[in-house]
Amino acid sequence: MSHFAITNVAIFTVDTRDRVIPSGTLLVEDDRIVAVGETGSVELPPGCPVFDGEHRHALLPGLIDCHSHSSLMRGVTENMPLMEWLPWYQLEHRALTEDYAYHSARLCYLEALLSGTTCVMDMYRFMDRCADAAGELGLRVQLAPYVADRPGKDFFASREENRRLIQTHHDSQQGRIRVWMGLEHLFYCTEDAYRDAVTYSREYGVGIHTHASEQKEEEQAVTAEFGRRSIALLDHYGILGERTLLAHCVWLNGDEIQRVADTGTAIAHCPVSNAKLASGIAPVPDMLAAGVTVGLGTDGPVCNNSLSLFEEMKFASLIQKASRLDATALPARDMLRMATINGARALGLDRDIGSLEPGKKADLLLLDTSAPNLAPMSVDEQGGNLLWNLVFAATGANVSGVWVDGQPVIAHGQPVRVSAGSITEASRIAGLRLHEACRKLAHTRTSMI
Amino acid sequence: MSHFAITNVAIFTVDTRDRVIPSGTLLVEDDRIVAVGETGSVELPPGCPVFDGEHRHALLPGLIDCHSHSSLMRGVTENMPLMEWLPWYQLEHRALTEDYAYHSARLCYLEALLSGTTCVMDMYRFMDRCADAAGELGLRVQLAPYVADRPGKDFFASREENRRLIQTHHDSQQGRIRVWMGLEHLFYCTEDAYRDAVTYSREYGVGIHTHASEQKEEEQAVTAEFGRRSIALLDHYGILGERTLLAHCVWLNGDEIQRVADTGTAIAHCPVSNAKLASGIAPVPDMLAAGVTVGLGTDGPVCNNSLSLFEEMKFASLIQKASRLDATALPARDMLRMATINGARALGLDRDIGSLEPGKKADLLLLDTSAPNLAPMSVDEQGGNLLWNLVFAATGANVSGVWVDGQPVIAHGQPVRVSAGSITEASRIAGLRLHEACRKLAHTRTSMI
Repeated sequence: MSHFAITNVAIFTVDTRDRVIPSGTLLVEDDRIVAVGETGSVELPPGCPVFDGEHRHALLPGLIDCHSHSSLMRGVTENMPLMEWLPWYQLEHRALTEDYAYHSARLCYLEALLSGTTCVMDMYRFMDRCADAAGELGLRVQLAPYVADRPGKDFFASREENRRLIQTHHDSQQGRIRVWMGLEHLFYCTEDAYRDAVTYSREYGVGIHTHASEQKEEEQAVTAEFGRRSIALLDHYGILGERTLLAHCVWLNGDEIQRVADTGTAIAHCPVSNAKLASGIAPVPDMLAAGVTVGLGTDGPVCNNSLSLFEEMKFASLIQKASRLDATALPARDMLRMATINGARALGLDRDIGSLEPGKKADLLLLDTSAPNLAPMSVDEQGGNLLWNLVFAATGANVSGVWVDGQPVIAHGQPVRVSAGSITEASRIAGLRLHEACRKLAHTRTSMI
Repeated sequence: MSHFAITNVAIFTVDTRDRVIPSGTLLVEDDRIVAVGETGSVELPPGCPVFDGEHRHALLPGLIDCHSHSSLMRGVTENMPLMEWLPWYQLEHRALTEDYAYHSARLCYLEALLSGTTCVMDMYRFMDRCADAAGELGLRVQLAPYVADRPGKDFFASREENRRLIQTHHDSQQGRIRVWMGLEHLFYCTEDAYRDAVTYSREYGVGIHTHASEQKEEEQAVTAEFGRRSIALLDHYGILGERTLLAHCVWLNGDEIQRVADTGTAIAHCPVSNAKLASGIAPVPDMLAAGVTVGLGTDGPVCNNSLSLFEEMKFASLIQKASRLDATALPARDMLRMATINGARALGLDRDIGSLEPGKKADLLLLDTSAPNLAPMSVDEQGGNLLWNLVFAATGANVSGVWVDGQPVIAHGQPVRVSAGSITEASRIAGLRLHEACRKLAHTRTSMI
């Protein structure tokens, strides 16, 4: 057994009581947290290595990104609403190779870890290569291949590929890799694909991840095509339920929110992406009031263009306050829960991650609170001003250390296992090649765009 | 004469043509830019020191924060709409001493420089001490004392203090310090104060800065009290004009926007603060369409809780896209102009700062574009994906170097003239004392809050 402890830190447990320990100690044994308490009350094993937070660090559960798409196309397809932008996005997927996918995943997973994210739900392609990238970096990932089986969408992944990925990679890397059934969208997938997803989900005990009701025009088009709105159609396909995570859900009405709540379906809320693509403002306070489990998602570098859950927490709260003219909408405590334990619940992982409690995996985020942007800092058992500043002032630049499964992956703000410089440089070279490949495809397929 | 040059950088000039030079050189002589062009086309004087950007840096005009309030109260008064929050904010001012003001300004000016801001409009108190702080750090500041002269508001600054500050500090520190006539609000200042501001503005050639139409309830209360809406009342007081900068203006109607445009009055738009205090979403696209000069403001650490213009640019664009369901609203180019040249124009400084052109002051922002969050990067004469990523992906953490008046103030992401650690620690000690002083005042003045 190996141990280490972090002492003299402000611990935000995000447990059921939202307990904050102003000067706490957390003890890790192998990959699990074994004790959390006030410094002095936690007995450390003899010779246990100790990181002394010196009362200028805060310890949180690692942040959870419930919806992302790895990519090398950050900032390339801009200034377009979703429906105009989609054909461009398809070009990326027509040009994508497993090598590009690998470099995309490495870059995005590096950026995630650097900003304090320890678990990412990635919907992408060639996901065995994404698993390789996650293994190199030490990130916890949920892999949902972009399955599409309607005519003309054959450049996405197939159901069979998804099933193979489950067989080869689900629960691999000491359980840090989990595979989901991924479905692009109602316009990309046949009813068969949805029904198969339900079958495989039961057979393999995996989750189902898809997009729903992102934009108003999309919702209208779904109704025109299928005679039902998105949630009703997904319900008809048997998709709603406790193993399903829906991204976006911007245009859900009250009845649909209730149905999502009643079925135990979770939602990945992506406020920055929803703003950037002019999709709208999801009714998150109504979702929470109905009891829906809502996690936060960045939606990846193409739609965001950042991968910081700190930014996502702040933006998610601000846009509700501004649009509802309610300064108390989505306060700091709610946002911190959304980015941690509620994200874990949305991914079916809340027994293992999302809070700092004995028995849970040691997915830890250590913040340096001595930086100017968090000063002056005071913390008490209600969290003090630090609670608010964690959501409204902290950024990825405050991230000092990150552990996943008790293993250090970021130390002193830099990756432990890999070189940030070489990953970024490799992604730059691959990225510029991919951009060129997309431009060539655009020339030969002008009808597409 | 002293020179230095920055070579092999992507230069975003933000000139009238928005010229981008993918591989450029900028030459500084003393405090001014003397040449900007493609690397190779700019002749360097013999022995000129050169910073080689190695094609992995971008050079922009320093960012401009058109409305801030220094403070040590970050995260202390949270979860309240503006009208509930104001009495708490007044407590800070009842407890404030010149020593607290000095530590506030040092902390906030440090945070500004670290995130690439080279010029701040600060409305605060004991502003001779703010000038001291700016001098230590090397920041360009506009100082607008919080003048209030209605009964019960005597804890703010007086008109006489404002006039003395002009006499002692206007155009000091080689012109980096400029003093404005500052007026808190229509509810805090008498008509006399406004009329005096106009007189002093003419007499000393200084600007006038005040708040207007921040919240719906405030606009209603102004109308109930004075029989006119805010813009009409300020117009009646003779305040509107080319030397005046109004903060917020969230609730302006079409006629008011037109009147602001016609009088050449500028607006400091503070989208994060307007969201956080549930003030609403200012009609910025309409202001721009009417020809109003709009700069960006953070509104200080109490209302934001960050001081990053990168965050403000992104948020300002996103909230318009989301609320108008228009993905083309406030594109990257507009946001970059708003944070630089339009901010300079709003402050009456566009002849000297806000763009990278020969003859202008060398207020420079150097970004490290080799970081993972900006990869992959390509830049061409239209800006490439870097233009979009400057607004939607870059953060203060990408700031590598900052110069004000040709003097280095940030190098390798750290302050050159001061110790970030000692400023932050001093502000922490002063801040906790001030929080305690406010708590004591709150106990003795419970009727206030």
